[in-house]
Amino acid sequence: MSEQPISGQAIRSFDLESWIADELRRLESALGSWVAPGGGVPAELAAPMRYSVLDGGKRLRPLLVLAASQAVQGEPQAALRAACAVELIHAYSLVHDDMPCMDNDVLRRGKPTVHVRFGQASALLAGDALQALAFELLTPQDGSVALALQGHLCGLLARAAGGQGMAGGQAIDLASVGRSLDARQLHEMHRLKTGALLQASVLMGAACGPAGESAKRALADYGAAIGLAFQVVDDILDVTADSQTLGKTAGKDAAQDKPTFVSLMGLHESRNYAQELLSQARASLRQSGLHRTDALEALADKLVHRAF
Amino acid sequence: MSEQPISGQAIRSFDLESWIADELRRLESALGSWVAPGGGVPAELAAPMRYSVLDGGKRLRPLLVLAASQAVQGEPQAALRAACAVELIHAYSLVHDDMPCMDNDVLRRGKPTVHVRFGQASALLAGDALQALAFELLTPQDGSVALALQGHLCGLLARAAGGQGMAGGQAIDLASVGRSLDARQLHEMHRLKTGALLQASVLMGAACGPAGESAKRALADYGAAIGLAFQVVDDILDVTADSQTLGKTAGKDAAQDKPTFVSLMGLHESRNYAQELLSQARASLRQSGLHRTDALEALADKLVHRAF
Repeated sequence: MSEQPISGQAIRSFDLESWIADELRRLESALGSWVAPGGGVPAELAAPMRYSVLDGGKRLRPLLVLAASQAVQGEPQAALRAACAVELIHAYSLVHDDMPCMDNDVLRRGKPTVHVRFGQASALLAGDALQALAFELLTPQDGSVALALQGHLCGLLARAAGGQGMAGGQAIDLASVGRSLDARQLHEMHRLKTGALLQASVLMGAACGPAGESAKRALADYGAAIGLAFQVVDDILDVTADSQTLGKTAGKDAAQDKPTFVSLMGLHESRNYAQELLSQARASLRQSGLHRTDALEALADKLVHRAF
Repeated sequence: MSEQPISGQAIRSFDLESWIADELRRLESALGSWVAPGGGVPAELAAPMRYSVLDGGKRLRPLLVLAASQAVQGEPQAALRAACAVELIHAYSLVHDDMPCMDNDVLRRGKPTVHVRFGQASALLAGDALQALAFELLTPQDGSVALALQGHLCGLLARAAGGQGMAGGQAIDLASVGRSLDARQLHEMHRLKTGALLQASVLMGAACGPAGESAKRALADYGAAIGLAFQVVDDILDVTADSQTLGKTAGKDAAQDKPTFVSLMGLHESRNYAQELLSQARASLRQSGLHRTDALEALADKLVHRAF
């Protein structure tokens, strides 16, 4: 008679890659069925919307939503919608950011950017429609997400996406080309530009379950730390990786004379800083008092040690 | 001793212009304090956002929200936020629509368009941030709007703005230049492009109060009729008014060989059609069984008989 070992402690052998593979299957299937699947959205708009979203991105933000929801035993359907909504905001920002009047980039994830493939007007409209679709996903009319939670999720996402979040950070970024920023200004730019949406991913996942205020504050701290770590690592990779590995144009920041953590503090210190932020993120998870934080911890680790 | 005449019936002498003047004061004040008033949003983004919104538009959509809310004795603070949110979606759509890759228009409400004044990148970002801000306005964190109502309002606005609404209509419009559309296709384009947001204005106002389902259906019919009437009148004015009166470039549709109601059915029939839609709108208001529909009726009348 065989018996499984039983332990009072959770067994610490979390398999992130298998967790990711499972969650990605759900995510890709949900995105495929929710992003302009034909019928309601005119075909000329649906095509660039689907092209920009259904292309095998890393899905870091939606994975964070799902991991945070898991930590609070959140409502799965709400979390899946929140996860896809955050990814749509990210996707729209890339579409607009790549346009000629912004970064004028022709390559994204190894494919022609949306405006190269479909024209600028279609790229502009597809981005606009993706932002609206994010809020559509958060507000299903079939009763699958409680109205109050819909309101809460919309508020978190709107603040992270708007002028006090991602769009604000992009405006600072745009104005900073060729200027030198000090450490405080660089942090502020990235807190808005990429940090706000990454942190919102965690908060939206946490909103799907019944966590207490102190647990949510700790998750917010975790989100802030990994948001910043993400950008530090991005800046490191911009100078150490090649375009093919990145799936986008490498060395772009240096070429455009944009201030980065590497240009400010050097490569070695940037690496140390990323490690320090990872430690902070882990400490916040411990402080949260939540038990199912395996996926959040492993994602933070992966994010800092990623090669692309 | 003087005595005011008292009547069991409401006295039918609604003064629309004075109602509009009062509501516009509240609206302009609210927009001025809510649209990137300094502090949270970086100055380089706040400037084009404020420029595009605080410029004395006609505010038709927010007035519809407030009038519909009045008809159902809606919650005033929620209605004011909904009114401003709808106007922000309208404003962002104009900013993006005017850009060189879309209509390439340099004049809007008698002023240089946003991209002419601030550059294309700022116009793109300001539009993006205005869309997010619309959802921020609907989701205040101070308890002034119930969370469930926040969710309901966000859902209505997102659907009206997105691929099955305004953005979808713009995509059809973009693809229709130089093509001939039949009456069904032209209706469908305008139902999405301008009708959806006008109808949503009415529905969002109605959502702020306790109207029954049949009243809301009647208000939806009213919204559909005036949404279409608005576009028919717009097409008429494009060929009959001059640029100075319109505050935008007149004759643009004809110059771009865009299908319009006038090109499809002629000027005379277009005018008849606008009148017929006005009658439909009035009939829907009667069917609603609501009593305080004076402002909605007067707005419909003004919309059809406007000269700009």
